[in-house]
Amino acid sequence: MERPRHQGMAKNTYMRWRLPLVCLLWEVAMIILFGVFVRFGPEADAHWEEEKQEMNVTSDIENDFYFRYPSFQDVHVMIFVGFGFLMMFLKRYGFGAVGFNFLLAAFGIQWALLMQGWFHSFKTGKILIGVENLINADFCVGSVCIAFGAILGKTSPIQLLVMTLFQVTLFAVNEYILLNLLHVKDAGGSMTIHTFGAYFGLTVTRILYRPNLEQSKDKQGSVYHSDLFAMIGTLYLWMYWPSFNSAISEHGDAQHRAAINTYCSLAACVLTTMAFSSMLQKKGKLDMVHIQNATLAGGVAVGTSAEMMLTPYGSLIVGFICGIVSTVGYVYLTPVLESRLHIQDTCGIHNLHGMPGLIGGIVGAITAAAATEDVYGKEGFIKAFDFTGSYKTWSPSVQGGFQAAGIVVSLVMAFAGGALVGGILKLPIWGDPADETCFEDDIYWEVPEEEESDAYHMHNPGDKPASP
Amino acid sequence: MERPRHQGMAKNTYMRWRLPLVCLLWEVAMIILFGVFVRFGPEADAHWEEEKQEMNVTSDIENDFYFRYPSFQDVHVMIFVGFGFLMMFLKRYGFGAVGFNFLLAAFGIQWALLMQGWFHSFKTGKILIGVENLINADFCVGSVCIAFGAILGKTSPIQLLVMTLFQVTLFAVNEYILLNLLHVKDAGGSMTIHTFGAYFGLTVTRILYRPNLEQSKDKQGSVYHSDLFAMIGTLYLWMYWPSFNSAISEHGDAQHRAAINTYCSLAACVLTTMAFSSMLQKKGKLDMVHIQNATLAGGVAVGTSAEMMLTPYGSLIVGFICGIVSTVGYVYLTPVLESRLHIQDTCGIHNLHGMPGLIGGIVGAITAAAATEDVYGKEGFIKAFDFTGSYKTWSPSVQGGFQAAGIVVSLVMAFAGGALVGGILKLPIWGDPADETCFEDDIYWEVPEEEESDAYHMHNPGDKPASP
Amino acid sequence: MERPRHQGMAKNTYMRWRLPLVCLLWEVAMIILFGVFVRFGPEADAHWEEEKQEMNVTSDIENDFYFRYPSFQDVHVMIFVGFGFLMMFLKRYGFGAVGFNFLLAAFGIQWALLMQGWFHSFKTGKILIGVENLINADFCVGSVCIAFGAILGKTSPIQLLVMTLFQVTLFAVNEYILLNLLHVKDAGGSMTIHTFGAYFGLTVTRILYRPNLEQSKDKQGSVYHSDLFAMIGTLYLWMYWPSFNSAISEHGDAQHRAAINTYCSLAACVLTTMAFSSMLQKKGKLDMVHIQNATLAGGVAVGTSAEMMLTPYGSLIVGFICGIVSTVGYVYLTPVLESRLHIQDTCGIHNLHGMPGLIGGIVGAITAAAATEDVYGKEGFIKAFDFTGSYKTWSPSVQGGFQAAGIVVSLVMAFAGGALVGGILKLPIWGDPADETCFEDDIYWEVPEEEESDAYHMHNPGDKPASP
Repeated sequence: MERPRHQGMAKNTYMRWRLPLVCLLWEVAMIILFGVFVRFGPEADAHWEEEKQEMNVTSDIENDFYFRYPSFQDVHVMIFVGFGFLMMFLKRYGFGAVGFNFLLAAFGIQWALLMQGWFHSFKTGKILIGVENLINADFCVGSVCIAFGAILGKTSPIQLLVMTLFQVTLFAVNEYILLNLLHVKDAGGSMTIHTFGAYFGLTVTRILYRPNLEQSKDKQGSVYHSDLFAMIGTLYLWMYWPSFNSAISEHGDAQHRAAINTYCSLAACVLTTMAFSSMLQKKGKLDMVHIQNATLAGGVAVGTSAEMMLTPYGSLIVGFICGIVSTVGYVYLTPVLESRLHIQDTCGIHNLHGMPGLIGGIVGAITAAAATEDVYGKEGFIKAFDFTGSYKTWSPSVQGGFQAAGIVVSLVMAFAGGALVGGILKLPIWGDPADETCFEDDIYWEVPEEEESDAYHMHNPGDKPASP
Repeated sequence: MERPRHQGMAKNTYMRWRLPLVCLLWEVAMIILFGVFVRFGPEADAHWEEEKQEMNVTSDIENDFYFRYPSFQDVHVMIFVGFGFLMMFLKRYGFGAVGFNFLLAAFGIQWALLMQGWFHSFKTGKILIGVENLINADFCVGSVCIAFGAILGKTSPIQLLVMTLFQVTLFAVNEYILLNLLHVKDAGGSMTIHTFGAYFGLTVTRILYRPNLEQSKDKQGSVYHSDLFAMIGTLYLWMYWPSFNSAISEHGDAQHRAAINTYCSLAACVLTTMAFSSMLQKKGKLDMVHIQNATLAGGVAVGTSAEMMLTPYGSLIVGFICGIVSTVGYVYLTPVLESRLHIQDTCGIHNLHGMPGLIGGIVGAITAAAATEDVYGKEGFIKAFDFTGSYKTWSPSVQGGFQAAGIVVSLVMAFAGGALVGGILKLPIWGDPADETCFEDDIYWEVPEEEESDAYHMHNPGDKPASP
Repeated sequence: MERPRHQGMAKNTYMRWRLPLVCLLWEVAMIILFGVFVRFGPEADAHWEEEKQEMNVTSDIENDFYFRYPSFQDVHVMIFVGFGFLMMFLKRYGFGAVGFNFLLAAFGIQWALLMQGWFHSFKTGKILIGVENLINADFCVGSVCIAFGAILGKTSPIQLLVMTLFQVTLFAVNEYILLNLLHVKDAGGSMTIHTFGAYFGLTVTRILYRPNLEQSKDKQGSVYHSDLFAMIGTLYLWMYWPSFNSAISEHGDAQHRAAINTYCSLAACVLTTMAFSSMLQKKGKLDMVHIQNATLAGGVAVGTSAEMMLTPYGSLIVGFICGIVSTVGYVYLTPVLESRLHIQDTCGIHNLHGMPGLIGGIVGAITAAAATEDVYGKEGFIKAFDFTGSYKTWSPSVQGGFQAAGIVVSLVMAFAGGALVGGILKLPIWGDPADETCFEDDIYWEVPEEEESDAYHMHNPGDKPASP
């Protein structure tokens, strides 16, 4: 399964015809499929005026747009700026981090609109889309961004597009099994997005194992400024995570509650991350890798339960635990995964999305199983878990059991799908970089030459007095 | 029309009294004019309680603030962070890019509130403002930011303020002609903002042509970090463009639809930009200039039609085309414009706003002309194109014709206005930089001296082990 | 009161056990207190379905979440990105600026939810929280971020946590006195947040005076890139300030009006800041310190009055004055405060929050005192100042008097509280840095070693032609 070193030497990373061909052909395919299938949903269609009258809606403010658009924009920022900049910590891979993330996400949201549309918004032969579809497409792509974190710096843009194509497809299938067949609740995607995305990515990177990756070890660290850029990603993910977990919850109390729970969990997570980051380092200094990543684990881990009556203190407990688990993972587990299991996880997604995602699934199952009519109110109980129609007779413990089943299904899908896609990406036709040129923008990007005298370094000494 | 080289040598860029004088006097003028004319609109006035009863509004949520404020904030970010950071790609002009953009936009929004107010919100001797006016003021300033892109690095802050004063004025006139006299639809401003702004700026930079600009050629490129800062601008523009194009559309389906169309167009645009960026470069590498700019062309080009029934696949087609046109423009057209037509376009606004703006106007005209009652519904049709009052008898093809006329008017206004303002800015009293000090913050800004030992470069080698 | 120099030399900044202990113990305390006290408010609780029926609410859109969540997210960005990045201007303290701000704010919002909850949301033994509580918690922490600006670079993370604990407590007491006992209006917190936070922080830094701080003078400036990072903070504070000042105003016209007033004030402030920045410097060049800070003073200074009928031109006048006051403060007052009063104010918070906060309190008092039924309308007048119940008989001038009293109370609380907390922080057990290692990330953070050959400096000369 390992690549001989000399193979790496001879790699052809020339993208000139391959990348354009993939981009253009696939985009043409998108146009054709959109042309055949995608139309505006009733709330975005110009017939809305008549729709309103039929549905007895008295005000435009009842349009779903006003319930969800602000959250949508926050989620959008998380996908493009959040993930893009978080991965910018590598000293020589800033263009690749933000640029490839941009590329795969832009393709992924289109394909996700189709895949998720066929499963969830297909009516009389057409996919009818609205703001909720846009959010779900961004969510789906989020799981690809997560997987990208594991293979960051080691793949070509074509490989990323191929992975996106398959992962979005599998995501939609997994999501359909969970939400529709198993009647699982997972509004913030602990299982569908994080668990699935992380273990999918980890499996892919395992298949793509590079035994000689230490040849580019010097480029795998950060520099001062790249760490600051990465903090932009961290903070936007952290701040907008309440929007992420509440974006597609039911109108009203559920969205409100999901935001509060996530806010609480994330706040607690920061403190335990800082505590363990300092504690686990001999000199007691804080490590930016932990601050950039483990502080977010609390958001992942309430993804399933945030819209439930987890309560603020329950959220604090979850965040407390996840800050610890995630930081400990970075210090102890990641090196072991690489040396023993040959899993090279560039961004440590196992610590940020893998374990916290699993915790999130479990917390969700427990919270659902523990639900009572007393806590939720009679109507709230039915609404929260959608115990209507054929699920009318379900008890919380049954729901909890199915929630747990959802974790298992997501894991199985991730491992199987990751193995399949990893195998495909291993084909020697995608132009991936040699071991010694990993984590290096220069392979796929025009990188500006930089002379000291050009930029503001060593510039005009003595020109300016100290600022007041 | 060209400046002799020696003139550049002797330039006086001392701002100490000129800049303060302009800023203070103009701000005093704003205060006086606001004092005479500007008051709160009914939804922002404390009389709203009574207004509500009169208008039979039952809930505060019906206040326009809740329909538009989230979009307003997104637009606000686009103007100040989006444009400001996008222009930060130059290696030594970061302060000027973000700082001068801040200055001109802060002045421009005040003057725009007045100019647009006189044309559109003038009632019984007062301009009554609300959140929609704030959005429109930001829009108006957007066109100035675009023009700024053409002359970036080559003008003094006073010149920028003078240009802002005139351009906002002309923008408001042009907008009035289009929206009120020609009954043109242009919610996202393909014509009023982008076409007008771009060709205005290009005309100005033509008039200000510097034959010896190659003297500062070494400063006209980017460095690694400046390209990353610029990506912040790019991404915020890209992510929030759906808010831009939907911000002032009618409540309900129109806002909803405009956001979806823009989302789709932008996604497609990323893929064709990447494709052509790689294809047009010998080594097949991606160029950050294209990624930073051409990916946005899809948003520009659905500015007029986004609120119409363009449909998602229609949007994909527009985005597809514009990514190509814009990238090809950067590679082939910009050098020709400079060498043949003496148009020195620092940011390549012709590729990002000029051509896509024209395409946007044309797409809007076609989409309007192709509208049918079948597609829009009877009421939706009338509402979408405002075929009421004296426009009751208009057919879609008439509307399409007037839309096309709007493009022509915008171009004429841009060329004439740009020539006038370019002539004014050519006067030797504004303190513009010499050819050899263009693209250089040091002329107008206190730039911190930077010694290697101070910042984190070459710092503490061996102090820290590789991060985990 | 001054520390002898040799003491600085021997300082023990080892955080390994102290910091984790504080973080973990305090977070456990939060969990216990949240467990005992904090529950969802009625609009976030699953009983909302029943609540709606009781309260005769017909639509979920009436949930306070939809009135305030977009503003909440903007405020959230201001606290974590705004303040965090604004303080990143120091050349070697970027990790500390953004990281410690992150730490103290994450702890502070939890403690603020409790403290403010006991005072304002305590019902039948429980604190019932909703989105407004989240905003208020962020507000409260904002005052700690302000105080952090005064001591930036000179304290250990433990000191910051201790200060946060006390300052949040005192903030809540002061806020209770002002809002509940004195019936003061202060929606944007000119008094409760800015005046209190600034003078609290200045008192603390006075007590912690370091006579030998010139030993780290070389690190107290900025470098080119750190100034650009700081502009991210500036712009997000500037853009979202309208959300800050309107976030907790009454639904409807008050929120709408507060946003407009703040928008106007901030715009004017930019112009006078630029004017005086240029005017007060011999060479007439603009200074980034002023642009980064003084441009925001206009937002501070309308914090109290923004929701009142200040009117747009009134806002322009306030912004006009504050840009001048703040810039002049940076140039002339800050050096004097340090040399004469031994107040070492790293970020110049006296200029950005101190003086503008006082002005804001005064403007608020005047605007309240000048209110008439004619301007506000009969119902609007009562609603704006809450002249109901026992305040039914209050006149505007009484309200104005109490507003003025609020300023005095805030100042007294700030000085007394700051002295107390400063005294506690002076204890030699918190691990603060020595004079010569202030403003230096290396003390508390793992800082990546940076070799020129690693990052993109002096990289591949000749590899790339000038960009098109």
